[in-house]
Amino acid sequence: MRYTRFVNIQDLQIEILDTTLRDGAQGEGISFSVQDKLGIVRALDDLGVSWIEGGNPGSNPKDLEFFRRAEALDLKTARLCAFGATRKKGIRPQEDPFLKALLEAGTQGVVIFGKSWDLHVTEVLGAALDENLAMIAETVQYLKDQGKIVIFDAEHFFDGWKGNPDYALGTLEAAASAGADRLVLCDTNGGNFPETITAGVRAALSAGSLGIHVHNDADLGTAGSLAGVLAGCEHLQGTLLGFGERCGNAALAAIIPSLELKLARRCLPVGNLERLFEVTRRVAEIANVGAPENMPYVGSHAFSHKAGMHSDGILKIRPSFEHIDPALVGNRRRFLMSEVGGRAAIAERTKKLDPAVTKDHPAVRALADQLKTLEAEGWQFEAADGSFDLLARRALGKYRPLFKIDAYRVVSEHPGDPGISCCYAWVKVRADGNQEIGAAEGPGPVNALDRALRKALVPFFSNFDIEKVRLTDFKVRVIDGKDGTAAKVRVLIESTDGLETWTTVGVSEDIIEASRAALVDSLEYKLISVIERRFKGLF
Amino acid sequence: MRYTRFVNIQDLQIEILDTTLRDGAQGEGISFSVQDKLGIVRALDDLGVSWIEGGNPGSNPKDLEFFRRAEALDLKTARLCAFGATRKKGIRPQEDPFLKALLEAGTQGVVIFGKSWDLHVTEVLGAALDENLAMIAETVQYLKDQGKIVIFDAEHFFDGWKGNPDYALGTLEAAASAGADRLVLCDTNGGNFPETITAGVRAALSAGSLGIHVHNDADLGTAGSLAGVLAGCEHLQGTLLGFGERCGNAALAAIIPSLELKLARRCLPVGNLERLFEVTRRVAEIANVGAPENMPYVGSHAFSHKAGMHSDGILKIRPSFEHIDPALVGNRRRFLMSEVGGRAAIAERTKKLDPAVTKDHPAVRALADQLKTLEAEGWQFEAADGSFDLLARRALGKYRPLFKIDAYRVVSEHPGDPGISCCYAWVKVRADGNQEIGAAEGPGPVNALDRALRKALVPFFSNFDIEKVRLTDFKVRVIDGKDGTAAKVRVLIESTDGLETWTTVGVSEDIIEASRAALVDSLEYKLISVIERRFKGLF
Repeated sequence: MRYTRFVNIQDLQIEILDTTLRDGAQGEGISFSVQDKLGIVRALDDLGVSWIEGGNPGSNPKDLEFFRRAEALDLKTARLCAFGATRKKGIRPQEDPFLKALLEAGTQGVVIFGKSWDLHVTEVLGAALDENLAMIAETVQYLKDQGKIVIFDAEHFFDGWKGNPDYALGTLEAAASAGADRLVLCDTNGGNFPETITAGVRAALSAGSLGIHVHNDADLGTAGSLAGVLAGCEHLQGTLLGFGERCGNAALAAIIPSLELKLARRCLPVGNLERLFEVTRRVAEIANVGAPENMPYVGSHAFSHKAGMHSDGILKIRPSFEHIDPALVGNRRRFLMSEVGGRAAIAERTKKLDPAVTKDHPAVRALADQLKTLEAEGWQFEAADGSFDLLARRALGKYRPLFKIDAYRVVSEHPGDPGISCCYAWVKVRADGNQEIGAAEGPGPVNALDRALRKALVPFFSNFDIEKVRLTDFKVRVIDGKDGTAAKVRVLIESTDGLETWTTVGVSEDIIEASRAALVDSLEYKLISVIERRFKGLF
Repeated sequence: MRYTRFVNIQDLQIEILDTTLRDGAQGEGISFSVQDKLGIVRALDDLGVSWIEGGNPGSNPKDLEFFRRAEALDLKTARLCAFGATRKKGIRPQEDPFLKALLEAGTQGVVIFGKSWDLHVTEVLGAALDENLAMIAETVQYLKDQGKIVIFDAEHFFDGWKGNPDYALGTLEAAASAGADRLVLCDTNGGNFPETITAGVRAALSAGSLGIHVHNDADLGTAGSLAGVLAGCEHLQGTLLGFGERCGNAALAAIIPSLELKLARRCLPVGNLERLFEVTRRVAEIANVGAPENMPYVGSHAFSHKAGMHSDGILKIRPSFEHIDPALVGNRRRFLMSEVGGRAAIAERTKKLDPAVTKDHPAVRALADQLKTLEAEGWQFEAADGSFDLLARRALGKYRPLFKIDAYRVVSEHPGDPGISCCYAWVKVRADGNQEIGAAEGPGPVNALDRALRKALVPFFSNFDIEKVRLTDFKVRVIDGKDGTAAKVRVLIESTDGLETWTTVGVSEDIIEASRAALVDSLEYKLISVIERRFKGLF
């Protein structure tokens, strides 16, 4: 077998290169600090990818700082590589400042991209076709002479191959004969069908050890990547969550499970696939994007069942409505409250408060009835884990109110022209037999209420880290829009104390009252967590 | 050719069935009011799909109200169909209450699903294999006898075909011999590879006119749908934006462009493909989900170029970094700052105010600049036709303020226990040189403000039908949830006077101020309509 393993993992059949930090950073709305990048490297190494493409030091000098600091990381399976272009026209590789920066990154591997589409060579680069071949060969040769593992990215390979197959294949041969260790066929514009990927890979098989790199512009990023592997590629490039320019790169988290579970191609060290769910959450968190709810395999919705018939089927036979066991990728089955799955799901979620609870426990039955009533009124606990927890505590008799709002008032005041607005809130809180009043202002009524409530609570709970709680997301949904402005609204608030994140819910015809309910639950959830931690031995 | 066209569109090669309202509504976080459903029907009809699956009247009696009201819509190309299961075990079709409800929907077409996977028949349904075949045949026969076009959805066809091909094919034959007009092969669990879809469709080709329905659990929803069509399916089911249980259904907006532009299979009436972008926005807005930014073809990022090199390449040769011309689907390249495409659309929407307007009219240029600024601040006029109209009037010099709010105050008062709430609003209005104050209370702050504003306006506009205006929908979207309760919100209000329906928008950090802006636009839009109608000859 001509495929040389550079990574010391037994039984690895497909070499995974994650380029979240390079191609992924081209995605709109994505940007990483050096600290972010180091965090993502750790996460990807925990997952066990073979290569992490860390950046393009030639075009982004800041990347050099990242590579310097990344050296100190003690990586378990992953190796770092840096990305750059073939040498400029008319100079020798050793004179090219970008290649100099690439080598300064000090990585074991380098990814070098060169043009495989004749149109690009002549019209965009403005080079002669032969000159481009020389640029590829000389650059690869130079980097091999420096002792690097060289991964050659054949940019626009498939578009080039369709127009001028001899030339596209010639660029691969130029790289291979100069010693490139991998020849990666790129669908840079992301518009090719899997059939083209299959045919292009087959045509290139004799050139060397092949890799595949596709984009998602026709929603075929996963299909093209699988087609590439099935046709003979041993190296796969993508970004964990599909970050990337335009519609993104092929999303590794959606591809690796199919390769391992359905095509028996091992991509990660044994046992690591089940970390996939957790690692995607970490990377999403660092990138400050929402976790991908609908994403195949790793989305929080990927194994959730809403239709009663489906829940019923699953309870009878697991594969009846599930293509894989969610535990294999670290995900879990979720029965959305209601219907048949209801009580089992409730018992599952209540176990952390009382491990002895089963679906026939009286508290679970009571909770099921209560949820049904509340859901009919517009409440929704699917996402509101914090509020669900408080509800379950009440049903189990493990609750006492820590504070109570006796009264509050919110004023949205617009004294002059529309557009000038100011909001004031005033809250009277009772706790432990005493009253306290807090008042605050803010740009909106809910923000003012949030501030006033915390002010009133601080005297009672001065060492409970209330001030550390930040509201990280605020969602409003009109439950039945048909009644116009008198419709009910549901408010979901996500909070964090820097360690844990929880979500709470409120429903009312008055958006301020709905927000009040969610805010109170959020702070109560936090207080209970602190009490449990600080006073656990006392109960 | 055995394929019978039911829709009167020339040159249509693939019949599109959109099931956003039925399978799409199974998606987590998706729920539609009857009003929402009617709005989506209008949008899908504007796009020009062949079939709209409106709901499951047997399991959801509320759907009957939708079908009753949908009859009044004057649809251009789409036909409605209702969805239901084959008859229950042991009874005749005419005794089945679910089939009765299905017929009550009064649609021209019905979609009937039956089980094609033997495992499901025996283990989930608990029926004998022959009994299931009879259930399929008798149900189809019964519905044909009622004069319906019958689309048979073979649930789990591909999983069934892999395990017991004869039985799976037998279920198709049972439906076909009873007169089913379409046999739709479903990958219900969404885990099959395109290779399986191809082989399964080929095996079924002789059974009748085939359709394909796949889910996205392995990120292959698009690839599987294309494979089905290439193997011979003439009917394609999916949801416009990919809504659906778990990872969603195949997303039609990502598939139709590939079929039309790359495979020369016409799915929509000539000229309609370029409405795709706009229609996806309308549907996302009605569903109250964010427009799909990364989505192939129709995402706002789908043709946006961040890498300098790519922008440079595009400026030299368009296809160098673009797989299709974005205008073909009504989308646009982003680094060029909209310009031409944007102005043409603006001119089109402004024509009803001044037919002489072209995209080079100074007012259109000014409006384009203003929209760019407002959109950056979070405003959104794609769905807000009423607010857009007022903006365009201002740009054309065809506007004068009919009233002005000098000041207002809204109080959300909660004197006692949480849960008891009362809101008061007070508004000072100036019109025609005079002032008037209105005050009102209501269950929520926006409702109170709406009532107070109308009270203040009545003395100035006592014969302008203000009291006939009803707010029929109210939507709130948090624009950037990351700042918690201090985030901006966008409010969309839909109003009707019984004849016309219009939507207006407001944006602010204060939800009450955002609502105020949308309410003012709504009433001003109404007043101008009445003035135009009553006093037209005077201008």
